[in-house]
Amino acid sequence: MLIHQDRLFPAEASTRKIAKALYEQVRTLPIVSPHGHTQAAWFAKNEPFPDPAKLFVQPDHYIYRMLYSQGISLEELEIGEPELLDARRVWRIFARHYYLFRGTPTRLWLDFAFQELFGLDQRLSEATADVYFDTISEQLRAPEFLPRVLYERFNLEVLATTDSPLDSLDDHKTIRESNWKARILPTFRPDPVVDPEFAGFSENIAKLAEKTREDASTWTGYLNALRKTRDRFRELGCTATDHGHPTARTANLSSAAAAELFYRVLAANADAQQQELFRAQMLTEMAQMSLEDGLVMQIHPGSARNHNRKLYEQYGRDVGADIPMPTNYVTALRPLLDQFGNERGLTIILFTLDESTYSRELAPLAGHYPCLRLGPPWWFHDSPEGMMRFRERVTETAGFYNMVGFNDDTRAFLSIPGRHDLARRVDCAFLAKLVAEHRLDEDEALEVAQDLAYRLVKQAYKL
Amino acid sequence: MLIHQDRLFPAEASTRKIAKALYEQVRTLPIVSPHGHTQAAWFAKNEPFPDPAKLFVQPDHYIYRMLYSQGISLEELEIGEPELLDARRVWRIFARHYYLFRGTPTRLWLDFAFQELFGLDQRLSEATADVYFDTISEQLRAPEFLPRVLYERFNLEVLATTDSPLDSLDDHKTIRESNWKARILPTFRPDPVVDPEFAGFSENIAKLAEKTREDASTWTGYLNALRKTRDRFRELGCTATDHGHPTARTANLSSAAAAELFYRVLAANADAQQQELFRAQMLTEMAQMSLEDGLVMQIHPGSARNHNRKLYEQYGRDVGADIPMPTNYVTALRPLLDQFGNERGLTIILFTLDESTYSRELAPLAGHYPCLRLGPPWWFHDSPEGMMRFRERVTETAGFYNMVGFNDDTRAFLSIPGRHDLARRVDCAFLAKLVAEHRLDEDEALEVAQDLAYRLVKQAYKL
Amino acid sequence: MLIHQDRLFPAEASTRKIAKALYEQVRTLPIVSPHGHTQAAWFAKNEPFPDPAKLFVQPDHYIYRMLYSQGISLEELEIGEPELLDARRVWRIFARHYYLFRGTPTRLWLDFAFQELFGLDQRLSEATADVYFDTISEQLRAPEFLPRVLYERFNLEVLATTDSPLDSLDDHKTIRESNWKARILPTFRPDPVVDPEFAGFSENIAKLAEKTREDASTWTGYLNALRKTRDRFRELGCTATDHGHPTARTANLSSAAAAELFYRVLAANADAQQQELFRAQMLTEMAQMSLEDGLVMQIHPGSARNHNRKLYEQYGRDVGADIPMPTNYVTALRPLLDQFGNERGLTIILFTLDESTYSRELAPLAGHYPCLRLGPPWWFHDSPEGMMRFRERVTETAGFYNMVGFNDDTRAFLSIPGRHDLARRVDCAFLAKLVAEHRLDEDEALEVAQDLAYRLVKQAYKL
Repeated sequence: MLIHQDRLFPAEASTRKIAKALYEQVRTLPIVSPHGHTQAAWFAKNEPFPDPAKLFVQPDHYIYRMLYSQGISLEELEIGEPELLDARRVWRIFARHYYLFRGTPTRLWLDFAFQELFGLDQRLSEATADVYFDTISEQLRAPEFLPRVLYERFNLEVLATTDSPLDSLDDHKTIRESNWKARILPTFRPDPVVDPEFAGFSENIAKLAEKTREDASTWTGYLNALRKTRDRFRELGCTATDHGHPTARTANLSSAAAAELFYRVLAANADAQQQELFRAQMLTEMAQMSLEDGLVMQIHPGSARNHNRKLYEQYGRDVGADIPMPTNYVTALRPLLDQFGNERGLTIILFTLDESTYSRELAPLAGHYPCLRLGPPWWFHDSPEGMMRFRERVTETAGFYNMVGFNDDTRAFLSIPGRHDLARRVDCAFLAKLVAEHRLDEDEALEVAQDLAYRLVKQAYKL
Repeated sequence: MLIHQDRLFPAEASTRKIAKALYEQVRTLPIVSPHGHTQAAWFAKNEPFPDPAKLFVQPDHYIYRMLYSQGISLEELEIGEPELLDARRVWRIFARHYYLFRGTPTRLWLDFAFQELFGLDQRLSEATADVYFDTISEQLRAPEFLPRVLYERFNLEVLATTDSPLDSLDDHKTIRESNWKARILPTFRPDPVVDPEFAGFSENIAKLAEKTREDASTWTGYLNALRKTRDRFRELGCTATDHGHPTARTANLSSAAAAELFYRVLAANADAQQQELFRAQMLTEMAQMSLEDGLVMQIHPGSARNHNRKLYEQYGRDVGADIPMPTNYVTALRPLLDQFGNERGLTIILFTLDESTYSRELAPLAGHYPCLRLGPPWWFHDSPEGMMRFRERVTETAGFYNMVGFNDDTRAFLSIPGRHDLARRVDCAFLAKLVAEHRLDEDEALEVAQDLAYRLVKQAYKL
Repeated sequence: MLIHQDRLFPAEASTRKIAKALYEQVRTLPIVSPHGHTQAAWFAKNEPFPDPAKLFVQPDHYIYRMLYSQGISLEELEIGEPELLDARRVWRIFARHYYLFRGTPTRLWLDFAFQELFGLDQRLSEATADVYFDTISEQLRAPEFLPRVLYERFNLEVLATTDSPLDSLDDHKTIRESNWKARILPTFRPDPVVDPEFAGFSENIAKLAEKTREDASTWTGYLNALRKTRDRFRELGCTATDHGHPTARTANLSSAAAAELFYRVLAANADAQQQELFRAQMLTEMAQMSLEDGLVMQIHPGSARNHNRKLYEQYGRDVGADIPMPTNYVTALRPLLDQFGNERGLTIILFTLDESTYSRELAPLAGHYPCLRLGPPWWFHDSPEGMMRFRERVTETAGFYNMVGFNDDTRAFLSIPGRHDLARRVDCAFLAKLVAEHRLDEDEALEVAQDLAYRLVKQAYKL
């Protein structure tokens, strides 16, 4: 077997027993996935997923960044190619290097999918590469592996995508208009039209104007265009926005100063500091709109995007060369919090790639401000040890109820059950330790386990 | 039962057994509390404590910051009111939300007090709110709950308060002049007269001048006024000073430059940088005076005070909206250490809210400079996981003997036994792990447990 | 006994059993020591080591920094004296204060050497000081304690020293020219001639010019002199360079700008920023040369050297007052990585004293760039808890195969077996936890244990 029924539970027998008992009560709860990067098109079209390499290797920068770090070129892996020339060859390279993933969550997610979805039970390696390729390829053609069937089989209750304000959301409409009862929702991610450093920023705003029939060359028109787009998203069930800025900086400019800054960035006359200030101001504007329309804000700051210049020039964004940076929250968020920090009707979910902020800044902030909640461990930290560190550093100050449950944040649809299962197990392991050390009673731990797996996410994201 | 006799000990049986054996040897040692925020007036007047809400909820920002974070207003909790209009109503709100404290040290401290002091054994909740309120209210009126009786019942050997240089210390005098044999000592906390950003700074200095009959409008007179005030504190048993600056920055200006800076801040002509420089210089001046008069220095840097602007405008200082900031020590302390770092007659105890400095800066500094010692985990980090992180990150570089035992640092007198008990348990758990992994012999662990619980604090604070 | 056969293994029985089984398979593997500060002269001359104080106390700043922190002067310890006046007196001071090392790795390393090398089995203390002194002194005079015999007894396969470009490497030549089959290699550490703040920088460059017969007063000549010196090191088996800069900053100047900067620093006309920029540029130049000649680069940044001004003025460098600083990698390394980050023929091994960078910067960088590898926990973090934190924070993102095994980094030759033994035990403990929690299969863990103890270091350092 690839995966063990007691995986991720503490070895100590009495603690493991508690963890297992807790896990049994959350194992089959529906999956609520409020933030991720799956494609609505898969469910709109409901076509079979392609071959194993296209499915597992090509879209997953967790996988190919590791292979790349060990000297395998992106060319060999056919990254960026619309169609794979030789999927089996790519798969074999991956299989031969599967040992590189020892000790990583990627290994755990993959083994879960291999065994639970495809019934594989021998470890992936050079020797088993072809068995894997053939087994998975064959099953992918079967009707029970169509996207909609998998959605149901995964026991998904909600699945949110992440979408540009310029997206037509046609796939979302198609899903809604079909008879299918799934709940697949868009998320409003305005980076292309609020971040002056985003490729095509001013063209994007022109398109936004066109789509909304607003004069987005004025500050007021621009804000109205954003408001209208949020409404368009909300009509399709959207409950949240998402903001991927380099920092968590916010600003609180006067209307006049904000307008002037807008004209400067729109005219491409802004320097790096002014661009940063504009993003900062836009977070505060988004908070204002959220207060009006009820959308929950997610802030994902602190990634140095496209760190590898040569790869970026050749392949563009999102090829696995984003590196976390030290991130400040206590000063950065102050302008926004000065305005809206005490609003009970506003929810802002903070994420971080800088774990040193967990106990120093994030837990104290979320343990005080009514509008703040903490998102789960993100990206590089979405792992057993990373999750444990998060719980250990945050809970004692902010408690469990200023957290929002789990996000899978994945581009790999097939990893969703494995990712949620891993999170539930680690949470049960954490709670079991508290129970075993008499820091929490078992009946309370059970309630918390259910809250972390199911209730908190629905409440925080208004789902 | 609310608390279990094995709480906070590792679940693994052999390690737990060692932890229990160690704990048995430190459990009944007297409590030495060298730093905290209890009121001398309680012991001077020796009047009954008021009702449960006034006792537990109103003064404790650990409690109401959590309630506030979940949307309960400070008005509902009657924070800041001299007399509670409806103490039972406040208590019921707290009881209904007691589940928010799951996994926090506040929960452990409270359950300890509820069970050990008041004999309660059902969990606090909406259902038990009134039983609690009535039981506690009744007992508080009994003679065995008078402050002086509790002091003795708690097995306190020393209790230090924290006091402004402008305080008359009359309550301390009253205690001394009574026949009561307790050792309650003031601590010299000069922030109101050395921090130019402290409310009423120049008025405070004028008052200091008046009290000391020094001309505090001159640099020399100001320093003399501070010296005289330190002497006044020392006459009442004070052995330590305390400094709550935004940063750990120190300076080493010439006398002339320091004097000029003093005139500038006194005339309110100093900008933020100059105000910071003045605080920095004053730490070095305080070290000079400590070298002369033997007072131990405590430095508590790194808190962004009054982060929530609206609450600060409405309620003033200390309403739970202080947020830690990244804190530097290695550069910041250099000017002071250049002067006094090698003095064996000086003791400076460093605290932090930035755990990333434990292994990076604080342990290496304390593991080298003769004058430096490390204070225990502070504030947000005064928790089981926080204490364990401190021991794990500091001990391997600085050893146990550059630490100073435990501080309860509390405003809540009734939490003192529970806080010390928690610290002793966590230390025994840490030591038990070292013994179980054969990194320390059991006889040594026992000696260290006693040092951490009792001997080191007396030695470091000269008690 | 001083050391227990199960030391450093988890107490939980099933995990301990796995750890022991893994350890049994790596316990006797040869020691490869690719980075450290032992002296080639010991092996060239092969003379007996002197007395215990000279051997253990005087060269080891881990030991005397702790004693100094507790008020023992360097005079009392005769630090810096070429010959000890009273070695027994120094040893007795150390013995009396041996309890200070409880909980530190120094204690574990020393106890290992005391028991395994000298057969001592009573704890060092004031009472046993003389027994220790006499026992060790006597044995040091025996032939089986000569440096070359110890090298073989320690099962060393490779031992690298760290050497100035101005070093004649005569001792290395002597070793090579003897019939002795050991592999003792120099490491090229150019700080004296690339760091403008290094004492005697311009004189050092003049000496370099003389040694290489290059005109090092020109930028080209200077680079050629460095190239020639690298060649001289390589001829004696050197496979690596080492760079101990205050920061990890790199630069990517044009040739003309680099030359101009060189003339400025050589003329001592450079300010602190320009000196830093020169060091930054030189890291990139060194990477260029490494690409040409194949030497592996090690970067050891982030130490504030000689923090204690008075000790530095009296004793010079390296007396234990170096304190880690916050260190940035993600921005600092970008200029170098822009040039060479994607080169598969280049290996750069990164170290840190700032543990907050493990999961935030170092693991993501090493988990992406083909040229980057992560060195083991360094200096203050080379300890059981420090190693465990490293594995826990790095493995999940970078995997095991972007690491390079263990460095002992020691000046204390006799600590080498104990240090490697400790590292192997902690790695087995870490792996055992993964196995016990079903995150890794036991056969894989065994392979990884061997990789971490032996194969990865040989591969990364090209040994």
